[in-house]
Amino acid sequence: MRTFAELYEHVKNLPPKVIAVAQAADEDVLEAIKEAHEKGIVRAILVGDKEKIERIASSIGMSLKDHEIVEAKSNLDACREAVRLVNEGKADILMKGLVQTAEILKVVLDKEIGLRTGRTLSHVAVFESPYERLILLTDAAMNIAPDLKVKIDIILNAIDVAKQIGIDAPRVAILGAVETVNPDMQATLDAAILSKMSERGQIKGAIIDGPLALDNALSIEAARHKGIVSPVAGNADILVVPDIEAGNILYKAITYIAQREIAGIIMGAKKPIVLTSRADSSDAKFNSIMLASLASNV
Amino acid sequence: MRTFAELYEHVKNLPPKVIAVAQAADEDVLEAIKEAHEKGIVRAILVGDKEKIERIASSIGMSLKDHEIVEAKSNLDACREAVRLVNEGKADILMKGLVQTAEILKVVLDKEIGLRTGRTLSHVAVFESPYERLILLTDAAMNIAPDLKVKIDIILNAIDVAKQIGIDAPRVAILGAVETVNPDMQATLDAAILSKMSERGQIKGAIIDGPLALDNALSIEAARHKGIVSPVAGNADILVVPDIEAGNILYKAITYIAQREIAGIIMGAKKPIVLTSRADSSDAKFNSIMLASLASNV
Repeated sequence: MRTFAELYEHVKNLPPKVIAVAQAADEDVLEAIKEAHEKGIVRAILVGDKEKIERIASSIGMSLKDHEIVEAKSNLDACREAVRLVNEGKADILMKGLVQTAEILKVVLDKEIGLRTGRTLSHVAVFESPYERLILLTDAAMNIAPDLKVKIDIILNAIDVAKQIGIDAPRVAILGAVETVNPDMQATLDAAILSKMSERGQIKGAIIDGPLALDNALSIEAARHKGIVSPVAGNADILVVPDIEAGNILYKAITYIAQREIAGIIMGAKKPIVLTSRADSSDAKFNSIMLASLASNV
Repeated sequence: MRTFAELYEHVKNLPPKVIAVAQAADEDVLEAIKEAHEKGIVRAILVGDKEKIERIASSIGMSLKDHEIVEAKSNLDACREAVRLVNEGKADILMKGLVQTAEILKVVLDKEIGLRTGRTLSHVAVFESPYERLILLTDAAMNIAPDLKVKIDIILNAIDVAKQIGIDAPRVAILGAVETVNPDMQATLDAAILSKMSERGQIKGAIIDGPLALDNALSIEAARHKGIVSPVAGNADILVVPDIEAGNILYKAITYIAQREIAGIIMGAKKPIVLTSRADSSDAKFNSIMLASLASNV
């Protein structure tokens, strides 16, 4: 796939998924659900203040007949109820409505009523690139300074998403500032170790190589210039950044400097989580819900 | 200034600078000097194997009549000679030819014969952005994990360059993954401290604010969405990244994802240093020499 539009051509023929929205009484959130429903991606279980949801829905011309409303009085109740719906198999996707990210994640990570799987939660983004393919970027938003064990989960979560968007044997680039191992740069040491773990079959379902700088990961010409022999260099499907600063800056550069489409979800829980923010464009919100609907097949 | 073309309209009216090239017997290097000379930016003192330099110059149709050749037999001699020319005021810019970056920097940093100023050396890049202005990015290439003291030098070096490209009171964004201070994120703590040092007049010549995420730094709309009140947010001229990974990934994203023009030089020595690499486009090489010629006025 090269674009989100191509991805949509594939997704629109699949049966719609059920998305549980924690605290849905918000115009931006309902607009996003309305669009995703009209395009055949989801139907929703809207958790929150029923009266308020109905009022906002009516004000934006949104019919509620294909959706369901579940009453919840507080933010905490709304989060719990939405998480319960996912846990009981009644919803395929969890979406944050008008609650804080920390509030909903606390419930998701609750050892008794949450959605834990043993896998660390991580953010997986997908963006349109000039390289004729959709590329994944992780982790730009969840793990501040992941150690080696967390990086493995980050990679596994991204591989899961890659397969659902049609990349069967994803090529994973572990990024650093350079393509050589440098004892003073932890990112390059982790990259060397992760590459070897991949070679030994300890991380399955992908071809992993690093350290690679972003140019060698993306561009065949740049990789050739450096004389890098690697099945990943120039062909990376998944970019793994060393930490949240590098990831967030790359994510924002894609949106605000390259001005390309990007979408993101949280993986590692029982089902994908959509955490769009008010600042996201409506395209970014729609693409994130579409991505979650595919990733819910993991 | 919005583009390198605009910058050139300004630079072309200034008297050309003298650039000393350490080990100039290289086609790529001489091509870059040829272009910069034809465009009126520099004349060169070419240090290296005279016979070889003449042979290559002739093969690319480059006249040597405005340039000077200084014989040097080894790489080390070439670096020493070029550095001496800068030290004696005979050259305004130092350029790496066919030597390793480490080789030339070792001579530059030599306590007796080098070009030390007491300021840490750092990389300053300038790129064309969608925000109607040239923006500076630092440090994407020299300092791996700068501490607070090094970050101050990095900022001062970038301010020097900003002023030479017409930004009199640059707005400096100290970037992090978020725009709030988070005790678990060192980048945000450094940002808070640097902002306060700026407020107290301890870092002069610029308005410094952080932490800012890249979107709040660049886009007024994104800053407004987050309710950030700051003289820098949405108007940043200088982006200071937390470490070399974030910087290098941002630099490469500008080139390989946003596909915009970028140029870079090393500041902090007595005169600017040009370290272009073979993989750089000829535009990138020319723009870097042009940037160095302006920065040599510091």
